[in-house]
Amino acid sequence: MRLVRIGPSGAEKPGVLVGDDQWIDVSDAVADFDEAFFGGGGLARLSALAEGREAQPIGEERIGAPIARPHQIICVGLNYADHAAESGQAVPDEPILFTKSPNTLVGPNDDVRIPRGSTKPDWEVELGIVMGARTSYLDSVDEARDRIAGYVLVNDVSERAFQMERGGQWLKGKSAETFNPAGPWLATPDEIPDVLDLDMWLDVDGVRRQTGSTSTMIFDPYVIVHYISQFMVLEPGDLINTGTPPGVGLGFSPQIWLQAGDVMELGITGLGVQRQTVVPPR
Amino acid sequence: MRLVRIGPSGAEKPGVLVGDDQWIDVSDAVADFDEAFFGGGGLARLSALAEGREAQPIGEERIGAPIARPHQIICVGLNYADHAAESGQAVPDEPILFTKSPNTLVGPNDDVRIPRGSTKPDWEVELGIVMGARTSYLDSVDEARDRIAGYVLVNDVSERAFQMERGGQWLKGKSAETFNPAGPWLATPDEIPDVLDLDMWLDVDGVRRQTGSTSTMIFDPYVIVHYISQFMVLEPGDLINTGTPPGVGLGFSPQIWLQAGDVMELGITGLGVQRQTVVPPR
Repeated sequence: MRLVRIGPSGAEKPGVLVGDDQWIDVSDAVADFDEAFFGGGGLARLSALAEGREAQPIGEERIGAPIARPHQIICVGLNYADHAAESGQAVPDEPILFTKSPNTLVGPNDDVRIPRGSTKPDWEVELGIVMGARTSYLDSVDEARDRIAGYVLVNDVSERAFQMERGGQWLKGKSAETFNPAGPWLATPDEIPDVLDLDMWLDVDGVRRQTGSTSTMIFDPYVIVHYISQFMVLEPGDLINTGTPPGVGLGFSPQIWLQAGDVMELGITGLGVQRQTVVPPR
Repeated sequence: MRLVRIGPSGAEKPGVLVGDDQWIDVSDAVADFDEAFFGGGGLARLSALAEGREAQPIGEERIGAPIARPHQIICVGLNYADHAAESGQAVPDEPILFTKSPNTLVGPNDDVRIPRGSTKPDWEVELGIVMGARTSYLDSVDEARDRIAGYVLVNDVSERAFQMERGGQWLKGKSAETFNPAGPWLATPDEIPDVLDLDMWLDVDGVRRQTGSTSTMIFDPYVIVHYISQFMVLEPGDLINTGTPPGVGLGFSPQIWLQAGDVMELGITGLGVQRQTVVPPR
């Protein structure tokens, strides 16, 4: 099943994607794809709920992020060996964890706004994990499988000067408004034949910048969920950005930063395509 | 006005504190002290709403955190020069920002649980700021005054090995369940004659460990709110832990860590007193 949220920002309706361009509105039965939904067994009921309802075209309607604003957006840093190398950093022995402000979440095709004072805005195509249950102290990596609601395409937009040159903690460089486009859909695990073999790519103004595959992740999604659960309690609907493959602006020589007017297009096999226009600070 | 939330964990009722040990239940008119309340002008209506209602004794009822789980708990690191020194770190040029998982929030007298694998659990008495409005790109430090709903006593419990020895980002050491006791009440700014002249203290098993004053903060609450607003959008009800004065376990020689059975007592002038028992990992 593929979950979508359709409608204006702040007023998206939850639904199920049908084919490429139709959806079934379930907003009369589901308040939102949020913590209560994922924590209350909503996903198990969704298929039956959608059955027999008529699909409608998405048409020109806005596609929102496929989940409501989560309790946390947790990011895994340097989770691809070749991205660590291009960033001039060592491959970590264990996952590096940090957060971005949950209100950075926007739709897959919304504008990305450069923050005031920014000099180094950058892109990051990533596989996102959406949690399906409250999760703490998993005994084994294998137990993580049942706790994952699904996967989502994310652009983990970053401001490298804020991230790296302002005190050492990365939050500042990850948390500007619009910095976390997600979607167009959440794919449940059964939609993804092998989550460890998905192609990833990102173009800026039609030039291919990132080419990668989840097959080169250092820590896979199950290891990540198990690991995080040893340090904190994950809530249903929490989003985990699992790191980016090589080809970010930081890694080029000379480095390349986003400019107002740039268009980012990105995709992951089975998780759809995003397209954002970069706009100047407000 | 002083806001309280009274009742079992997860079922607290919002109310107004009267004197030392009575409260006015407003739960029939206010859903919770949450983002919708603070963002919707609830604080301005609360005094009129409580007027004429009868106060009741708190008695043996549990006191919860005085705010609902916020969108973010943002922490300011090393914000007291003498604490930076005891931590062996330089006084920062600008605020260091990181987060702790919002679901760490518990009541002021709830147990604090040592996480599994912990070797260096530590305490931190702190002044917490609760945001009263959505806040972004403040033009001046002075504008921050109107965005603050009030102040709260916080114990920013920390696991130093997880914080400092597990990859460099501090999230892991701050986010274990029960790691953010807050309360007993939120004091609106008019209750606090001078937020920059409040005594702070923390005892472990009756031994005074931290003695400080908000007068020695490097970055004051208005500077902090203005600063954070340049990097991210603060939501109403967000909690900002503004840093701890000297006397944490990390700073002693030899270092002192919390043990199961320890009792922490802490207070800030005008913001009440907390008392937590430290319990073993579950």
